[in-house]
Amino acid sequence: MLIVRDAFLGIRRFDDFQRSLGVSRAVLSNRLDRLVAEGILERHRYQEHPERHEYRLTDKGRDLWPVTMALLGWGDRYYADHGPPKTFFHRECGGEVTDRRTCAKCGAELTVRDVEARPGPGARVGVG
Amino acid sequence: MLIVRDAFLGIRRFDDFQRSLGVSRAVLSNRLDRLVAEGILERHRYQEHPERHEYRLTDKGRDLWPVTMALLGWGDRYYADHGPPKTFFHRECGGEVTDRRTCAKCGAELTVRDVEARPGPGARVGVG
Repeated sequence: MLIVRDAFLGIRRFDDFQRSLGVSRAVLSNRLDRLVAEGILERHRYQEHPERHEYRLTDKGRDLWPVTMALLGWGDRYYADHGPPKTFFHRECGGEVTDRRTCAKCGAELTVRDVEARPGPGARVGVG
Repeated sequence: MLIVRDAFLGIRRFDDFQRSLGVSRAVLSNRLDRLVAEGILERHRYQEHPERHEYRLTDKGRDLWPVTMALLGWGDRYYADHGPPKTFFHRECGGEVTDRRTCAKCGAELTVRDVEARPGPGARVGVG
């Protein structure tokens, strides 16, 4: 789920996943393969010499957005001593996203495409 | 998360978790210990001779309800060939629970205590 979370936050490349998650290349490679096999991520070649791939969420993967948002909300509640590392806003009106994935300002029921992530108070300096 | 899901569905005892999940006693014991250490489950002694314990969700564990509901919804969409094994209803009015944890009938925003699980079309015979 941490890989999926990172994919929602825009990470696509092996090295960037590794930097974010701090796991070994072997473990990360194994988990990415399982997510591809399960149809949650797709592998795309973005460079030929040397060959390089990136990983993108499939439709099935994007449908994990409610799970990801729920997990982030729970993590923010119990583990974010300095506040949430990420906060989420409705692109259209700037309202905050509630824990039921609606807009706190205009009340719209939001999908992943309606929402923008911004660094929150708990974002580490230089990251976020 | 499967242990947490089962806990939400009312399972509390070691043998019942094992029957539901089909994992070895060693693996289950290890995972239960980790959930207790993380403050998600609490161990309660319910019998003295021989000593027997059950596992109940803490408040922190109960706050994983949105995650569990989101995962169940996703699983129903992609893995429930015979329909959802469980369906969820608002106790008070009998309306179905939407994927934003509101009542499809009366519109109330629901918490875990407002919701009742019933076997769905994909429930295995004799289970659920």
